[in-house]
Amino acid sequence: MKLGQLAEAIGAQLRGDPDYEVQRVASLEQAGPGQLSFLASSKYRRLLGQSRAGALILAPRDTDAFAGNVLVSANPYAAYARAAQLLHPAPVPAPGVHHTAQLERDARVHPSVRIDAHAVVGRDTILEEGVWLGPGAVVGDNCRIGPHTRIYANVVLYAGTRVGARCIIHAGVVIGGDGFGFAPDQGRYEKIPQIGAVCLGDDVEVGANTTIDRGALGDTVIEDGVKLDNLVQVGHNVRIGAHTVIAGQTGIAGSTRIGRNCVIGGQVGIAGHIELADGVVLSGKSMVTNSIPEPGVYSSGMPIEPNSAWRRSVARLHRLEQLYRRVDALEAAVRSGAGREAGPSFERTSNNKETES
Amino acid sequence: MKLGQLAEAIGAQLRGDPDYEVQRVASLEQAGPGQLSFLASSKYRRLLGQSRAGALILAPRDTDAFAGNVLVSANPYAAYARAAQLLHPAPVPAPGVHHTAQLERDARVHPSVRIDAHAVVGRDTILEEGVWLGPGAVVGDNCRIGPHTRIYANVVLYAGTRVGARCIIHAGVVIGGDGFGFAPDQGRYEKIPQIGAVCLGDDVEVGANTTIDRGALGDTVIEDGVKLDNLVQVGHNVRIGAHTVIAGQTGIAGSTRIGRNCVIGGQVGIAGHIELADGVVLSGKSMVTNSIPEPGVYSSGMPIEPNSAWRRSVARLHRLEQLYRRVDALEAAVRSGAGREAGPSFERTSNNKETES
Amino acid sequence: MKLGQLAEAIGAQLRGDPDYEVQRVASLEQAGPGQLSFLASSKYRRLLGQSRAGALILAPRDTDAFAGNVLVSANPYAAYARAAQLLHPAPVPAPGVHHTAQLERDARVHPSVRIDAHAVVGRDTILEEGVWLGPGAVVGDNCRIGPHTRIYANVVLYAGTRVGARCIIHAGVVIGGDGFGFAPDQGRYEKIPQIGAVCLGDDVEVGANTTIDRGALGDTVIEDGVKLDNLVQVGHNVRIGAHTVIAGQTGIAGSTRIGRNCVIGGQVGIAGHIELADGVVLSGKSMVTNSIPEPGVYSSGMPIEPNSAWRRSVARLHRLEQLYRRVDALEAAVRSGAGREAGPSFERTSNNKETES
Repeated sequence: MKLGQLAEAIGAQLRGDPDYEVQRVASLEQAGPGQLSFLASSKYRRLLGQSRAGALILAPRDTDAFAGNVLVSANPYAAYARAAQLLHPAPVPAPGVHHTAQLERDARVHPSVRIDAHAVVGRDTILEEGVWLGPGAVVGDNCRIGPHTRIYANVVLYAGTRVGARCIIHAGVVIGGDGFGFAPDQGRYEKIPQIGAVCLGDDVEVGANTTIDRGALGDTVIEDGVKLDNLVQVGHNVRIGAHTVIAGQTGIAGSTRIGRNCVIGGQVGIAGHIELADGVVLSGKSMVTNSIPEPGVYSSGMPIEPNSAWRRSVARLHRLEQLYRRVDALEAAVRSGAGREAGPSFERTSNNKETES
Repeated sequence: MKLGQLAEAIGAQLRGDPDYEVQRVASLEQAGPGQLSFLASSKYRRLLGQSRAGALILAPRDTDAFAGNVLVSANPYAAYARAAQLLHPAPVPAPGVHHTAQLERDARVHPSVRIDAHAVVGRDTILEEGVWLGPGAVVGDNCRIGPHTRIYANVVLYAGTRVGARCIIHAGVVIGGDGFGFAPDQGRYEKIPQIGAVCLGDDVEVGANTTIDRGALGDTVIEDGVKLDNLVQVGHNVRIGAHTVIAGQTGIAGSTRIGRNCVIGGQVGIAGHIELADGVVLSGKSMVTNSIPEPGVYSSGMPIEPNSAWRRSVARLHRLEQLYRRVDALEAAVRSGAGREAGPSFERTSNNKETES
Repeated sequence: MKLGQLAEAIGAQLRGDPDYEVQRVASLEQAGPGQLSFLASSKYRRLLGQSRAGALILAPRDTDAFAGNVLVSANPYAAYARAAQLLHPAPVPAPGVHHTAQLERDARVHPSVRIDAHAVVGRDTILEEGVWLGPGAVVGDNCRIGPHTRIYANVVLYAGTRVGARCIIHAGVVIGGDGFGFAPDQGRYEKIPQIGAVCLGDDVEVGANTTIDRGALGDTVIEDGVKLDNLVQVGHNVRIGAHTVIAGQTGIAGSTRIGRNCVIGGQVGIAGHIELADGVVLSGKSMVTNSIPEPGVYSSGMPIEPNSAWRRSVARLHRLEQLYRRVDALEAAVRSGAGREAGPSFERTSNNKETES
């Protein structure tokens, strides 16, 4: 692709040869002639001098540090993303239904759809223009999959699942399994039928082996532009606001509402029946037990220590109550010592402490 | 369904019109004519006055707050579960083996069984009455699946797995994979063959993409009525007692025994080779490193703080040892100051502190 | 198998009857005649006297505590692993491609390969000698699977994945899904194409439903002998050093490098873009936010307490800042009290404290 074209396509300003050809993207360290890279953070500006890249995408403030072809963009990372999409386009499959795929009666499949080997499409299910079902993918009855959505191998969508346009559902994902709802009754559990469904908006991406449960009564809803990483668990009746991203192995318990434009790290645990505001940022492994009404960055968890230090830390935490009492006693001792000029003995206070505990 | 019938079927007492027809369940806020809802907690009693529901399931103490048809039950939530099961019965598939399904020789399949497209049944495997295998489900050799058990799409049961009656195994579940057993030997690992199996009791439900490993020597055992949520990991030779429920992403390391009627939250981590008593309740994200001999509610973990506060908390925790020493020194100072009337200097104590550290 | 043969095969020294036949392995408590067991830790030496095992593998120091046949080995656990492999060999499937399997053109499949029902092999993919693909396994285009590697049911390998020799990939694993890479742009996200791949060395084992993402530019690399348990998440461009073992539900964020011979517990969370030295040991649920330059054992996390105690612990942790200030104030009071002989009042210090907060 010629740099002139590329600049126009990604909305960047070209400084250099518009006829220069770039073939692929590469890391800043490895990019050579014919290859495109980028610099997102001026922190690494010093690397620009040594770069052999055929062209770089740079912010205006960094252009003077590189002598070669430059695509100037206010957001080099996003411009790079668009350029990489153009240079490495996702494969567009030839339309067609593999002879081993099984379509139930009344499935409505657009002629442009590609269905791979052993995929299964249920009754009354609609696959819109350009949908691609990978091998072994199972789409249940009464589903609707929007245009140009890509569903990878062995994904399972339960009956009634609706997926918007241009979504990417990675291999092994399960959408629409029963929510975890049981009523205790005399030492046993009665299953609560889960009669809601799951609804995904447009431009949603769901990572491998992630699970999204169907609603108990209403639907579980994933709004437009949400990105879920691998092995994420989304409980029944959760709603995730548009353009929120959630990293791997995070779990969201039932009926919780996550705001828009949140950024949620990996292995975060979010309790059920709470609400997170728009713009909440949670660092990895955070434990969220209550609603978060204000945007901001929140964190929890104790980073590692050497094992022996950790053992002492745990012991100290478990003795913290005693420490509070010792400080209470000290304050009492100091206070009364100051008052009576010739001090009360700490021992007496110490006795009080015993009485308290 | 007529209310009279329904009352009888769920063991509730009817106050109202026995011929009134209800078609479906709905939430208390949304239920209208012909729809059934319930109130489990008197805390929300005030909502009853506004309800337009065709009928409600209520505890005796709440019946006076609603003027319409009432099904009176001591346990409204369980009664609702049973009513919802009747009004929204799980589909019963037509018996039959899809022509693309593959049955190995000597598989014994009851005539009422339904096997969907591309499912695979291994040698000498027994599928009892009313079993339903979803598309792409793989049941290995020498398995036995009890009556009316439902196995969803793309589940994998390794050879030798036994599943009881009326179980529900959601899509993507893997049961019977090798336990994680390796013997270190000169900087490498020798695999320990995992020659046990997995045995599930009756009425077990297993959530999507959960994994249950086979035993190393004996079996991994999930007793009757256990409910596992999605993405749970059960290690080899674990035993989970009857009617225990475990929420999403919890992990149980090898050879641990969980009691009966436990309630275990999401993302809990339970170490190997320990034992939990019957009736243990663990809140989400708990870290269990030792046996729990007594029933009760147990918790751990630090809920989130604003990031800057959390950074200070972590720093303070790492300085906790110093704080303990400072309090030791203060106590020594106060004690000796009280004894000698005209105080020992804190500085001297401070020097002692240095010596100690 | 005769003990004489077995001793030779596992590199142990025999004390007893070389013609004695053992059929299978069993636990020390349950092993009877014809069965082989072992003792790895002298701690349980007292059990040896009661053992009815046909033969035992013991360390030299423990041989005198058992009167029967003994295989003497410096590492009884590893010797047991090898013996169990011989007595319970993994099944070797008859070669052949199931008639329902789908091979794309130019797939190169060694005649000894076994491909089960509904498996799919992509274009230009190479399956070397003795490879076994389970039912429903999907191997994308341009993959290469090394000799004697076993891929269980419903595994998905995306295009370009390379797997070494003698690997075991358990059911439901997904390798090569897109890494989680998005560039924020005006409240939305642009997808960064993930054009790297995944490369597994020899003798790697990957547990059920684990996910390993393809690299953004370069490859994600799992070196020889690595063992991953179930439901592990490996982010894009991670490198895991040879002979490292990682327990269930652990997550490793993008671009992190793990050293060789590390032992990582379950539910550990490891941040992105950091480096762990060779020989690092992490206990379960550890939270790793920074590089670990030195080998050693590291831990974090607060084990459970009874719920009421935990609530108080959390409250105390959140008041820790105040406690530090109270100790500051006490030190100031004691110091000045000691200096002026007749005490400064604690109240004055207390006022200062107010000012500070």
